[in-house]
Amino acid sequence: MKLSERVAAMQFSPIRKFNPLGFKAEEDGKTVYRLNIGQPDVETPACFMDAIKNFDKKVIAYAESSGVNELLDAIIKYNGLYGIELNRENIIVTNGGSEALSLVFTAIMNPGDAAMMAEPYYTNYSSFLNQANGTIVPITTTAETGYAWADKELLEKSITPNTKALCCISPGNPTGRVLTLDEMKIVGEFAKEHDLWIISDEVYREFAYDDRKVASFGMLPEYADRVILIDSVSKRFSACGARIGCIVSKNRELMDGVLKLAQGRLCSPTLEQVGAAALYNLGPDYFAEAKATYEARRNAAYEEISQIPGVVCQKPGGAFYLMAKLPIESSEDFLMYMLTEFEDKGETVMFTPAEGFYRTPGMGKNEIRIAYVLEADKMRRAAELIKLGIESYKAKKA
Amino acid sequence: MKLSERVAAMQFSPIRKFNPLGFKAEEDGKTVYRLNIGQPDVETPACFMDAIKNFDKKVIAYAESSGVNELLDAIIKYNGLYGIELNRENIIVTNGGSEALSLVFTAIMNPGDAAMMAEPYYTNYSSFLNQANGTIVPITTTAETGYAWADKELLEKSITPNTKALCCISPGNPTGRVLTLDEMKIVGEFAKEHDLWIISDEVYREFAYDDRKVASFGMLPEYADRVILIDSVSKRFSACGARIGCIVSKNRELMDGVLKLAQGRLCSPTLEQVGAAALYNLGPDYFAEAKATYEARRNAAYEEISQIPGVVCQKPGGAFYLMAKLPIESSEDFLMYMLTEFEDKGETVMFTPAEGFYRTPGMGKNEIRIAYVLEADKMRRAAELIKLGIESYKAKKA
Repeated sequence: MKLSERVAAMQFSPIRKFNPLGFKAEEDGKTVYRLNIGQPDVETPACFMDAIKNFDKKVIAYAESSGVNELLDAIIKYNGLYGIELNRENIIVTNGGSEALSLVFTAIMNPGDAAMMAEPYYTNYSSFLNQANGTIVPITTTAETGYAWADKELLEKSITPNTKALCCISPGNPTGRVLTLDEMKIVGEFAKEHDLWIISDEVYREFAYDDRKVASFGMLPEYADRVILIDSVSKRFSACGARIGCIVSKNRELMDGVLKLAQGRLCSPTLEQVGAAALYNLGPDYFAEAKATYEARRNAAYEEISQIPGVVCQKPGGAFYLMAKLPIESSEDFLMYMLTEFEDKGETVMFTPAEGFYRTPGMGKNEIRIAYVLEADKMRRAAELIKLGIESYKAKKA
Repeated sequence: MKLSERVAAMQFSPIRKFNPLGFKAEEDGKTVYRLNIGQPDVETPACFMDAIKNFDKKVIAYAESSGVNELLDAIIKYNGLYGIELNRENIIVTNGGSEALSLVFTAIMNPGDAAMMAEPYYTNYSSFLNQANGTIVPITTTAETGYAWADKELLEKSITPNTKALCCISPGNPTGRVLTLDEMKIVGEFAKEHDLWIISDEVYREFAYDDRKVASFGMLPEYADRVILIDSVSKRFSACGARIGCIVSKNRELMDGVLKLAQGRLCSPTLEQVGAAALYNLGPDYFAEAKATYEARRNAAYEEISQIPGVVCQKPGGAFYLMAKLPIESSEDFLMYMLTEFEDKGETVMFTPAEGFYRTPGMGKNEIRIAYVLEADKMRRAAELIKLGIESYKAKKA
């Protein structure tokens, strides 16, 4: 009675495994600024709960496996805002972007197959690929170049014979890197040459700051047969707990394969789909407001973090994460210290040690990911706590 | 750009793949009695929606990966009714029983490993195992013996060297077979001798009719280290669309492994967990009422179906399914006929062709599964439609 090798080889989520220590600190009376998880404090638009409260059927019944029509139509309308034309058959609703990725990897990966993606990357990709008996081939990037990776030479250098797909998260988690449409074309050409699937995770689509424009692989019809979009209501609409996402693709064979898997797990929750439909029907005004909110938080977070002595970080272009290299040896050890020993006026801070975001051994040990999901003032205070924490941690170690 | 071998080898769900024909028949103005899917017309208890409507947080946030405490505590209380003592660490909340099974198989199966289970079995087990690169070893049963399988000799004959787990659905889907606690002990001893996990799917736990008692592997502490209970609110509380289930086990290593997977997909939907907590807090009165409802439907369905000339079927002891062997060659072809050609007073009926419930090639071709999920009168009418359908189908074929 052993566990499977894939699970034995897995780690606990670096984003979540310190939660017990965070709860303990709170029980001990500390205030903990939680920058470890992409859980914004932005209110979920009221239309979500309103739609659910108005649901008047007496039986909470199964939905169709590919999603309820009301939600499919709202997703079509939403994508239409960007000139991405879809029909219902191009969409399968999932339990968040997480299940979307699991289903896609299960549908395309044989044991030993690999997906290439820029590291650092959202750590749960390892988990989803591992479950599908696949692996990640890293495209190694650096903070110094702003985590740039859409470069033909770099891509050619990274690909392996068993690479079957290329994963792209843009705007990026954890780097905040935003691909332009021209960069997407470079990636698209590379994928075409090597006959790769393009899995494009666009859950932060609108969160592209400064003068950056919304860009999507869905806007490039020349790659439509190989493009698989991953989406979710979690970030765009601050509805992480709704667990509604979707897979969008015009490749019929892929969608048939995914549908078989989706039928096996029956459906996504019916009520949440009704709420999510209301969210997807929100228009550009909502996106502009949300973007402005996070841009202000980014500005506050970056301004403070980048001024901490010895910290290396780049101003992220999108999403709501910031990678920072700290003047310490182990960010895991530092986080333990912050949660168990440190406090300033009864407050401390959580972040994510970044080692789990790298595939290449040894990388990321002294880096952290910060989610700028709290109000600007709180972000400033959280950054101050990191600064004070580094000082006292170094003093203790010295 | 091919799909994975496991997905290419999969079939569309036999329970769901005829849905488009069913919708078409309805669009053409026919009334379709849907006995193909375990979707009862019983009202979801009002406490479910009430709890959700009373949810007053402004942000629909992620829950903990293992579930919200309110729900964990309600699951503990519910199991306590049967003398099954649990604590929060023994439970992980999932997206329905479906995800519970997927996570468990992913956690214990290496490629090539097998789980043994009585056939006919709920067809989605193939799907979940396939995704985990595992297979099913069938314990072949027959209608003539009431699908009995908890027999040491039969189990010894069926096991293979790569069998790692034994799956038990009791009360059974699709056969309605209910194991007694003594039969569970036979299975438990066998599993112990061969060092197998016991995966016990108890989503129909209370639906054991006549003089049968509720029995659970959770009541047998001598096997606690190898028992994994699968549960769900779908059937017991007629809340299929809520997609809330759970994994229950006292094996710490297993729960740690499952938690790693659960962290990867973040959490089950927050609101639905709040609603599900209210459901699990319902007491024995509710279960008695629900059981009486389905028992009456079973009686009606069995009475009518068993009287159709040439039909072989046994009175099911539990759950809400009935297997029937029809006097035709192909139940798939017959269902196509029922949905596209047949009608009586503008009405027809859907059921599930049972071939997909068998692992052994050639079995089940002329069998169907009927879900007795509609009111007794409707079940009688649906049975009449099957009878009329068989007559006109045979006349057409002759």
